[in-house]
Amino acid sequence: MSVDKWKTAITEAKKGEIRVRGYDIVEMMGKLSFSDAIFLTLKGELPKRAESEMLRAILVSSTDHGVTPPSVLSTRNVVSGGNSMNAAVAAGVLTIGDVHGGAIERCARTLQDWGKRPDEVSFIAKELVSEFIYKRRRIPGFGHRLHETDPRTVKLFQIARDLNFLGRHMELAQAIEVELTNSLGRKLPINVDGAIAAVISDMGFDWRMGKGFFIISRVVGLVAHAYEEMTREKPMRKLGDWNFEYDGPGRREIPAGWK
Amino acid sequence: MSVDKWKTAITEAKKGEIRVRGYDIVEMMGKLSFSDAIFLTLKGELPKRAESEMLRAILVSSTDHGVTPPSVLSTRNVVSGGNSMNAAVAAGVLTIGDVHGGAIERCARTLQDWGKRPDEVSFIAKELVSEFIYKRRRIPGFGHRLHETDPRTVKLFQIARDLNFLGRHMELAQAIEVELTNSLGRKLPINVDGAIAAVISDMGFDWRMGKGFFIISRVVGLVAHAYEEMTREKPMRKLGDWNFEYDGPGRREIPAGWK
Amino acid sequence: MSVDKWKTAITEAKKGEIRVRGYDIVEMMGKLSFSDAIFLTLKGELPKRAESEMLRAILVSSTDHGVTPPSVLSTRNVVSGGNSMNAAVAAGVLTIGDVHGGAIERCARTLQDWGKRPDEVSFIAKELVSEFIYKRRRIPGFGHRLHETDPRTVKLFQIARDLNFLGRHMELAQAIEVELTNSLGRKLPINVDGAIAAVISDMGFDWRMGKGFFIISRVVGLVAHAYEEMTREKPMRKLGDWNFEYDGPGRREIPAGWK
Amino acid sequence: MSVDKWKTAITEAKKGEIRVRGYDIVEMMGKLSFSDAIFLTLKGELPKRAESEMLRAILVSSTDHGVTPPSVLSTRNVVSGGNSMNAAVAAGVLTIGDVHGGAIERCARTLQDWGKRPDEVSFIAKELVSEFIYKRRRIPGFGHRLHETDPRTVKLFQIARDLNFLGRHMELAQAIEVELTNSLGRKLPINVDGAIAAVISDMGFDWRMGKGFFIISRVVGLVAHAYEEMTREKPMRKLGDWNFEYDGPGRREIPAGWK
Repeated sequence: MSVDKWKTAITEAKKGEIRVRGYDIVEMMGKLSFSDAIFLTLKGELPKRAESEMLRAILVSSTDHGVTPPSVLSTRNVVSGGNSMNAAVAAGVLTIGDVHGGAIERCARTLQDWGKRPDEVSFIAKELVSEFIYKRRRIPGFGHRLHETDPRTVKLFQIARDLNFLGRHMELAQAIEVELTNSLGRKLPINVDGAIAAVISDMGFDWRMGKGFFIISRVVGLVAHAYEEMTREKPMRKLGDWNFEYDGPGRREIPAGWK
Repeated sequence: MSVDKWKTAITEAKKGEIRVRGYDIVEMMGKLSFSDAIFLTLKGELPKRAESEMLRAILVSSTDHGVTPPSVLSTRNVVSGGNSMNAAVAAGVLTIGDVHGGAIERCARTLQDWGKRPDEVSFIAKELVSEFIYKRRRIPGFGHRLHETDPRTVKLFQIARDLNFLGRHMELAQAIEVELTNSLGRKLPINVDGAIAAVISDMGFDWRMGKGFFIISRVVGLVAHAYEEMTREKPMRKLGDWNFEYDGPGRREIPAGWK
Repeated sequence: MSVDKWKTAITEAKKGEIRVRGYDIVEMMGKLSFSDAIFLTLKGELPKRAESEMLRAILVSSTDHGVTPPSVLSTRNVVSGGNSMNAAVAAGVLTIGDVHGGAIERCARTLQDWGKRPDEVSFIAKELVSEFIYKRRRIPGFGHRLHETDPRTVKLFQIARDLNFLGRHMELAQAIEVELTNSLGRKLPINVDGAIAAVISDMGFDWRMGKGFFIISRVVGLVAHAYEEMTREKPMRKLGDWNFEYDGPGRREIPAGWK
Repeated sequence: MSVDKWKTAITEAKKGEIRVRGYDIVEMMGKLSFSDAIFLTLKGELPKRAESEMLRAILVSSTDHGVTPPSVLSTRNVVSGGNSMNAAVAAGVLTIGDVHGGAIERCARTLQDWGKRPDEVSFIAKELVSEFIYKRRRIPGFGHRLHETDPRTVKLFQIARDLNFLGRHMELAQAIEVELTNSLGRKLPINVDGAIAAVISDMGFDWRMGKGFFIISRVVGLVAHAYEEMTREKPMRKLGDWNFEYDGPGRREIPAGWK
């Protein structure tokens, strides 16, 4: 029977030598920042200076967002059940899904799909916004449950302008924001997911890798929360007892000869 | 009923403002490297320059080690089953356990527990090695399945010397290596887990956070492998069909009236 | 701020009393088979006799399928990394995805969506098959990578006929099989996922619960494999070393002033 | 390089034939209850009648315990983040840890280790209780956060008596309960974890499989909760916003030249 081998183009590990995308890990340890090593591992090439700066800013922006996101609740519940650091962090990563961090992936896909059209970004944005409004769909990466103007987004775009990094996808994202305000009569700003999506698209990353950037950054906060739960709280604490309600069927009995 | 609140000292997220350990995320985005932000999120304070450099080198050293570690196999199997990036990376993180990355935690615990003794490190190392040999236990963080002299370890210690960073735990680790060679008559070198354990102990991190550093770095490789599997391989590929063997009971039948 | 409570209609647990869907757990322990308790927990009502028998047969059919499915490989890798039973089984459950067990969900959805049409099943089957062929899509639940005629499927349909259980969705599934043979000129039989999808649809379960039945059954095999790995194999065993290939970039160096 | 094969004694899957522990899956589908199939898959042999009844009662006893256990909170958080059934159930299984379900494993270990002694159970119980009290350790499987007398435990022991199933481990568990009451002057009853631990020990299961029985049963409730969250709640709902508190450092700035 023919069999599929494990093949990889990422890293070659031999006795006494580890090469990531061709570069010796020892040389990398001497010369690369962590975000540069991340760029190299994911993309296969070293970043240019502006790419290096942008990725650094993205990764710094998302390490933690307090105790309320579902991923943190899962991580702390897993610790509370009596589990190890890796299990707790895994549960947090698992919770990062289509509506929690997932907008990066979907927004990047939208920007990349529409960005391929041969038109001006302002024209594409008009078409895109009217199609989404017509189909009554939300454009992923715009609006936020908490922040009206997300300070992280503002900063990301400012850094991009300073570095002269604004590419087609970032411009398209900005054009969509303008167009949304015109169409809806109120501001529905790019959120941090949308900004990250635009930046990684301008770096040439496939949208399929979108959640990856958020995971790599947020895993830091998950480690911190797992540790905080381990050292500050008792196991199996009463997390769910306050505010719950059973609203199912009342007391009943299994009838004789029920089957 | 009294109830345990969610409490956290890591991040405060309010409308339009996010502060990690007291620092504004926007200021952090402008001024910190990703490894500095990691140090701050985990430790609660900004790193000193040598700490910053050491943590950077640690994180760069472990992003990937090729396709063979169990964590990568799990990640790629989860993709192969038809799952998303977050699920795949979560399975990889989950696989990082007591014998895969876990030596960091156990070695840091050993170094921190023994390092508290008021004696010289060379004396402590003698006691420690003879106790472990007497109890026929392996000292976590020494020896490697593949690399005789792990190039990453050599580099980490070299950077530490250049930065004048060698603290008590790194010295203890080196003394243990010397002592092991003397006692066993062959080299059982510090591996990368042991080196990381010594460095983070010298930074004042609790051993309970040990696996966290490995996870934060290796999650990068897991994202790369998940993406590679998604884009280079067919779903549900034949990964296990080559080399397996059933050695259980032969064909038999459920006897009449068996129960 | 208004807040979403935890609400549930499944189980009420009070001091000294646990009621599942209204029934006392103690009474259930005396009178229900495990598959009846499963039906009750998932559906909210006790099964009829034929439903009880069908669900029992489904659950027995899928406990294990040997060492090759990706879910088993993940479970055993997690044990091999040095983790606990719950972590290992969790990784296996996680691996059950859109292409591994997931066909139950997608097939149930197809049967439920098309089954709502007011026509005869043979007519619906014709329309459905020609639409899928036209769109060059595979119909989920038909064909198998290993078994030409899946013995589990044959048995499930036979039990259904004996119990006079064949409802609209099972009939539709059979009509699709006939229609596929006519259209393709070769047999593309209902597989076990398709058969389970048809049966649970006839029981009135929502397709969204599809993967759940497979998970409930297969978790048994995952426990058995985790235990077998724990007791028969060494930790961190060489699972991936045989048959792998690095095909990325060759040896290169970081250029001076690269950034 | 020599390589470790995948070996298994659980199931042989060949074209058109699946045999679990030697028995044809088709024959099993016709003749076994689900709990009998579980016994066979885990133990390698068919259960005796009393074993079959006891395992059935155990599995029925633990399918769900309402919305408050950490495993359920994790499952619902993962759904809330926008993930699939398998990811949600995996997170729940992952949360079942040393202090949530894990008492089965630890209690079974205690009963099996101490039960090997050649003495009368009442004598062993005395020794065991005084050792645990002396070491100020809790005996796993005794006491419950909610139920003073766990109705599931009472029922399990009653069924065991009716079936004449009480073996050495169940007797030891009961003797420990008596001894605890004598020593502490208040009742610290066997809980459901302890009862299950005693029963599976009398069936000859290794304590390492302890959590497995709880997982196999509770996974049913996790599927039900995942489905309930999917169909009754909005994604990314406000689960953590009510009752949380930031108590970390106040507002501060990154000092100039901090590094």
